[in-house]
Amino acid sequence: MANKPSIPKGTRDFLPEQSLKRQFIFDTARSIFQLYGYQPIETPAMENLETLTGKYGDEGDKLIYKIQSGKNLREQLGEEKTVALDAVYPDWLPQKSDRALRYDLTVPFARFVVQNQNELSFPFKRFQIQPVWRGDRPQRGRYREFYQCDVDVIGSNGLLNEAELLCIVSEVFENLGLGDIQIRLNNRKILSGIANVAGLGNYFSEMTVAIDKLDKIGVEGVKKEMIARGLPAQGVKKALDHISRKADSETVLRMLSGSLIGDEEGQRGIDEMRKTLRALPEVVREKVEIDLTLARGLNYYTGAIIEVGHEKFPSSICGGGRYDDLTGIFGLKDVSGVGVSFGADRIYDLMEDLDLFPKTLSASSDVLFINFGEKESLACMELAMKLRSDKFSAEVYPDAAKMQKQMKYANSRGFRFVILIGSQEMDDKSATVKDMNTGDQQSVRFDDLNKFVFDKLGAE
Amino acid sequence: MANKPSIPKGTRDFLPEQSLKRQFIFDTARSIFQLYGYQPIETPAMENLETLTGKYGDEGDKLIYKIQSGKNLREQLGEEKTVALDAVYPDWLPQKSDRALRYDLTVPFARFVVQNQNELSFPFKRFQIQPVWRGDRPQRGRYREFYQCDVDVIGSNGLLNEAELLCIVSEVFENLGLGDIQIRLNNRKILSGIANVAGLGNYFSEMTVAIDKLDKIGVEGVKKEMIARGLPAQGVKKALDHISRKADSETVLRMLSGSLIGDEEGQRGIDEMRKTLRALPEVVREKVEIDLTLARGLNYYTGAIIEVGHEKFPSSICGGGRYDDLTGIFGLKDVSGVGVSFGADRIYDLMEDLDLFPKTLSASSDVLFINFGEKESLACMELAMKLRSDKFSAEVYPDAAKMQKQMKYANSRGFRFVILIGSQEMDDKSATVKDMNTGDQQSVRFDDLNKFVFDKLGAE
Repeated sequence: MANKPSIPKGTRDFLPEQSLKRQFIFDTARSIFQLYGYQPIETPAMENLETLTGKYGDEGDKLIYKIQSGKNLREQLGEEKTVALDAVYPDWLPQKSDRALRYDLTVPFARFVVQNQNELSFPFKRFQIQPVWRGDRPQRGRYREFYQCDVDVIGSNGLLNEAELLCIVSEVFENLGLGDIQIRLNNRKILSGIANVAGLGNYFSEMTVAIDKLDKIGVEGVKKEMIARGLPAQGVKKALDHISRKADSETVLRMLSGSLIGDEEGQRGIDEMRKTLRALPEVVREKVEIDLTLARGLNYYTGAIIEVGHEKFPSSICGGGRYDDLTGIFGLKDVSGVGVSFGADRIYDLMEDLDLFPKTLSASSDVLFINFGEKESLACMELAMKLRSDKFSAEVYPDAAKMQKQMKYANSRGFRFVILIGSQEMDDKSATVKDMNTGDQQSVRFDDLNKFVFDKLGAE
Repeated sequence: MANKPSIPKGTRDFLPEQSLKRQFIFDTARSIFQLYGYQPIETPAMENLETLTGKYGDEGDKLIYKIQSGKNLREQLGEEKTVALDAVYPDWLPQKSDRALRYDLTVPFARFVVQNQNELSFPFKRFQIQPVWRGDRPQRGRYREFYQCDVDVIGSNGLLNEAELLCIVSEVFENLGLGDIQIRLNNRKILSGIANVAGLGNYFSEMTVAIDKLDKIGVEGVKKEMIARGLPAQGVKKALDHISRKADSETVLRMLSGSLIGDEEGQRGIDEMRKTLRALPEVVREKVEIDLTLARGLNYYTGAIIEVGHEKFPSSICGGGRYDDLTGIFGLKDVSGVGVSFGADRIYDLMEDLDLFPKTLSASSDVLFINFGEKESLACMELAMKLRSDKFSAEVYPDAAKMQKQMKYANSRGFRFVILIGSQEMDDKSATVKDMNTGDQQSVRFDDLNKFVFDKLGAE
């Protein structure tokens, strides 16, 4: 194979610096999730096809990656049909599929909860950081393989959960240096109330799908789409008037309370929203605004819906909501859940744009020992081992290559210190240590090397 | 769907405690790799099919999971052929595949190095911890989705690399509590020398494949297999005599040096082995034994081969070796590499058997606040937030459920402290703190809560 190797469209290799930065995002989220008592789980990349199909709408179903089963259909077909098949399409072993790659973490989580219910204590608070795959058309910021970072609590109706998740969202972004996010909050029950009083009660799903596009096509576009879908024009106008209200949260909720008089579900939505906001500490509260235009297309949401944005990024970087019956599709009824999903790849892109990754996240080591030959390098191996026992990262250049080549490596990797031990240094039991920041060189006794590095790095 | 949900055979869900233990293994390995200057990379789960096929032998090729492309072959076939196809196999949309799931981390790494060579500095030292997929027959300890944990250096011939990797192996297992591993070391050049002097030079590959089965089928079995494969009986006997030698390393190497006189490659192998052993610190050296029966079936190995075992585990838990031309298959010649792969799932099973995971690795939090109603729970939310700011994990039970239910949750999750704040406690601004280890209860002022928890946990 002499072709230049490549990877499938929409997938990526991650070089060391990128991997370290990604790991920083995952580690940060993980540590916050654990402080709030959420526990990690993992599910397999492969699910049974029937677990996934029918859960993401017709469009979603088409994007699911199916895995070929090992079964050779030729054998199953028998010889007669195989001959007929060869006439249609020779030199080809057709295979069926009964497994597929995870499309998101939510449906596998619902499946996990039902399957493992006897081993879990409820409310069950879990987080999960794993890749998902979608056969979407690749474009800037949209990949076919990407990580999701989900945190959910299942088996509790309490609105403290919504509040807690908003605290988690705030704290994760704060820890990533993105304290200036905006959290938009809405409630599907309020949207349902608005649909009802506008006479669109029978078109709730169509209404939310259309509203979901408001960012992209504007109010007029949404109006047109709703009317094109057969929604009564007067109701459409009324609903859009309601959701276009802008004011501070208290005012919005008071106005809504009046507009939705007599609509029980709408009033319940308002009450849920009030309780959620009340439970927030001020530092989180000030990042949250009620946005009645927030709909989130996914139909499994039944209460709060949440979306997080940043003024320097065109799309949302985190989102979620409450779903009252997600496990129902797998046979476990009446279990309510609520959760949010962090878009790790988008957060990465945003942090890169804003130069927010810590400078200490470098792929370089503290110390490189130059290799002057077998005898010297063995002394270096020992000293490197000693440095590592104090948690300094250290490398010995593995070949007695030309000095120029070794120094080129030292520069490209960005070591903090380069240590030279030639025959003179061996005799003196002292290393020549070059500080790569200042260019200074000095002689340090072998026995004092750890202390020397400790003092220098400690002072920085 | 009312069926009990399930996952594909050979795959697994990981519950919180299992996930934490797995993470402990990965984190331990990662921190050691980084101390030695190895850098993380990630490659996509999906590779182009042509990147993988032909690299793992005929048997391996069959185990590769292929992903169906989104293209509908019916459209490509045109109507006439489609009608014929329907006659053969109705209601079925056949699809072709041009992508597949990663089968190991080595071939994708070779592809990565060639594709990204201009952005890497050589020698390039990388580690990679990602899942791989194989359509193998599932059995105890063998899964269809499992993690590999690979560490390799590429672009250097120096034998210090072999020595360094043995140090890494020793240190990783030491840190996992598995200090009592045995590292078996051999060299393919020595095996080649033995083949040559035994007159089996033309059967080297067949010889190593047969020797690789020695553990399973014994010397007589290997002998039979080699003869069945057409190897001359006298040579087979001679080769097996050589590899069956058992003595201390120095003696084995001295004897070999005599037996392989005149065989240049064999002598080079002996020299490599000597240099590698010489570069090892005593603490690692004493875990290594020369085992001439170690062959490792994979034909890309050209120098050192390494396998790590533990007396309480039936198969190897880590293995690797040097490969002189792995990137050659992707068009980059003369780049030598050496690496080892840790079998994370086997290590997990072994550590579980020996009860080696740290007891602190628990899925429980430090503190649970019992929920007595909205007003009290808001006070708890604030106190929990304050505890978390000092890195104590804290939860507020999300519903004002019956005390019995909340205490059942507290017990099943294993919290260290349960804190009760009812109306009396609200008035007194003091919490009732129950120490779940001792059963003691005491009153602690809200303001002193962090210090109280700190003192208690710090003393443990």
